[in-house]
Amino acid sequence: MKNLKDYSKQELIELKKELQKEYDAFKAKGLKLDMSRGKPATDQLDLSNGMFSSVNKADYDNHIFNHPIDYRNYGALTGIEELRDIFAEMLEVPAENIIVCGNSSLNLMFDYVTQCMISGSDGMHPWINEKEVKFLCPSPGYDRHFAIAQYYGIKMVTIPMTGKGPDMDAVEEAVKDPAVKGMFCVPKYSNPTGETYSAETVERIAALKTSAKDFRIIWDNAYVIHDLKNESDFLPNIFEVLKKYGNEDMVVEFTSTSKITFPGSGVSCIAASARNIAIIKSRLQFQTIGHDKLNMLRHVIFFRDFEGMRAHMEKHKAILAPKFMAVLDEFHSSLDGLGIAEWTEPNGGYFISLNVLPGTARRVGNLAKEAGVTLTTVGATYPYGIDPKDENIRIAPSFPTVEELKKATKLLCICVKLAAVETLEKEKD
Amino acid sequence: MKNLKDYSKQELIELKKELQKEYDAFKAKGLKLDMSRGKPATDQLDLSNGMFSSVNKADYDNHIFNHPIDYRNYGALTGIEELRDIFAEMLEVPAENIIVCGNSSLNLMFDYVTQCMISGSDGMHPWINEKEVKFLCPSPGYDRHFAIAQYYGIKMVTIPMTGKGPDMDAVEEAVKDPAVKGMFCVPKYSNPTGETYSAETVERIAALKTSAKDFRIIWDNAYVIHDLKNESDFLPNIFEVLKKYGNEDMVVEFTSTSKITFPGSGVSCIAASARNIAIIKSRLQFQTIGHDKLNMLRHVIFFRDFEGMRAHMEKHKAILAPKFMAVLDEFHSSLDGLGIAEWTEPNGGYFISLNVLPGTARRVGNLAKEAGVTLTTVGATYPYGIDPKDENIRIAPSFPTVEELKKATKLLCICVKLAAVETLEKEKD
Repeated sequence: MKNLKDYSKQELIELKKELQKEYDAFKAKGLKLDMSRGKPATDQLDLSNGMFSSVNKADYDNHIFNHPIDYRNYGALTGIEELRDIFAEMLEVPAENIIVCGNSSLNLMFDYVTQCMISGSDGMHPWINEKEVKFLCPSPGYDRHFAIAQYYGIKMVTIPMTGKGPDMDAVEEAVKDPAVKGMFCVPKYSNPTGETYSAETVERIAALKTSAKDFRIIWDNAYVIHDLKNESDFLPNIFEVLKKYGNEDMVVEFTSTSKITFPGSGVSCIAASARNIAIIKSRLQFQTIGHDKLNMLRHVIFFRDFEGMRAHMEKHKAILAPKFMAVLDEFHSSLDGLGIAEWTEPNGGYFISLNVLPGTARRVGNLAKEAGVTLTTVGATYPYGIDPKDENIRIAPSFPTVEELKKATKLLCICVKLAAVETLEKEKD
Repeated sequence: MKNLKDYSKQELIELKKELQKEYDAFKAKGLKLDMSRGKPATDQLDLSNGMFSSVNKADYDNHIFNHPIDYRNYGALTGIEELRDIFAEMLEVPAENIIVCGNSSLNLMFDYVTQCMISGSDGMHPWINEKEVKFLCPSPGYDRHFAIAQYYGIKMVTIPMTGKGPDMDAVEEAVKDPAVKGMFCVPKYSNPTGETYSAETVERIAALKTSAKDFRIIWDNAYVIHDLKNESDFLPNIFEVLKKYGNEDMVVEFTSTSKITFPGSGVSCIAASARNIAIIKSRLQFQTIGHDKLNMLRHVIFFRDFEGMRAHMEKHKAILAPKFMAVLDEFHSSLDGLGIAEWTEPNGGYFISLNVLPGTARRVGNLAKEAGVTLTTVGATYPYGIDPKDENIRIAPSFPTVEELKKATKLLCICVKLAAVETLEKEKD
């Protein structure tokens, strides 16, 4: 197809008319579709219905026969050992570097930043005493990370994403500022671009020489086993690489089963160096007597082991992959060659990142909304909710059906073109 | 029996010999009993085994048929409505004043104090900016409350308990200090004295005129339906009384099902004024997408309604009451009339508070420990772990069996007498 930028004013006017007609026809259909959040679909949730009764009394008795701890009672601050073992295998760290917690890794990250603010990441120098605290925010990124920073008045510094992770030149430069205390990273199938940090990126992260001695990276490995293809993207074990540089304390890793079993009823965990685990535990023991051990056991019995969890993820893949395909196919057939849109084609995770003609993303979001398709709030993928180029749109294909996605994406592509034509037409004036 | 204080030196020496013999005999038995924490016993946990499978897929489908929210998915920041309704009935407040949360009310209280420190109880004036923050700590009290204050460097001011709640003269005097920002209260079957705040105490609390405009009471109603007798102690609905004085924002209430279903796998809640709920939600939305709705549903289906929960508590009572009786009977037969010990006889809750001869509590704790009976760390019931009179011992009768309790209490009484005799004998010098 011809690049829209090469259209004459007259051609653009004609195209706009056509697109407006197509758009109006869609609007008349009264769609009601939500592509805003990375919510698993109903048939994905159904995969874990076995969890409802995975722990019955007989299983329970059998499982903890001769076990020193009654999982129905208080205790086990760092979680039950069977689940620590599974997470240890998943994250490739020793079980003693794992704390299994409650139902939300977001909560853990919020809590960790809270701890840093009040007691310091080193347990000694509260960030709240600093004149200014800054965090590096590779963007487009995860809005709920940015919200944590914003809640605490942490100044966010946008770092561009490169397709192989954050722009490490920019990161290496930024960490010379002693006010830069941390960075948010989704290292695998990043939210929303779907990119996985390359081995080189991970190496440069591990080797960072930060001015702040108490600099911490929130390593949100939310999609560690959430593949969409047969081959999983390779992400080096960050803790192994950190060791080479004596930087083990610089990264605290988080993950959860929110998108493995049930969002909201899963289990989350922290993986960190012995020193960081000790600092986190020193606060955790004031916070709680322990997290929900029966829900941990429910997961252990349902999966048996990490291989069981992996097998389970194959079922998610079978549901999700066609949905991503539906969106990407439509993008190709509607947008290829027009020169007004670029998008990622991830091997895993929950999102596709779509960049439209700069200056038109919000317009696209509004057009789609008016026609019944809710996208992630445009701008949300950038710090303070402001996309400086107004070009990025996060697509969450998980929740709707393939049929719905086809319709919604068709509409979205019309909106992308319509908004582009409107802008290009004005530019011709 | 004769008051030990009236014994002659010679009589004390003889008695000591006798007690030492009895003590040694016990020690030789090699007991191993734990009366340190308010842990439900195994048969109490068994009462809730139906929870393991209370939600199966069919129940689930049936229950949330036509329901707008899939409880297996993200969402419902304030908890599922069915459980909010049950807690609303329990705490006698409208459901909109309830937030149902995770597995730990301790966590909620820690979090609430954290919010006050960082953002202020009013959402505007962070306590961390104050030169000094003080909390009133009715004592003997709950060690984990005191630990929260200590973690945040909040200065604890001890307020004596009177048998009808905290000494309100002392409280009214103390709140004139603008640095006093809060108070911990366990208003019903208080930990560890088991006393319930009288209507007059509640009235005076509700009417408090505090210098600090942002003063907050942590109203930890942990034992709200945890009766040991047929009659429940009457505790006025604090929010009703607060209304009379326009003081609704002064109290934030917490409770949980930790000692109703499974400790660690229960559900907790916050009840508060509309304004406090809004302030708490303004932070909660950054913290999490929602708590474990399936565990909430598990509770709803298991109990059906508040009456079901009440009926369930009758079963706990049937197990717990004889345990309290065993301890109290032994206290009476071993200690009555000796003038060296006083204890509470609570109508509910999880503890008996024993006051021994001043200056001997730690000695009693050590003697008991050496003979195989672990008590709550002596001193723990006071701020900073220091009982100024060294007299208070918290007895937790829930975990051991009645037979074990009889033995353990017999030993404990020997220790109480032995420690007293040692001290009294020295005083005769």
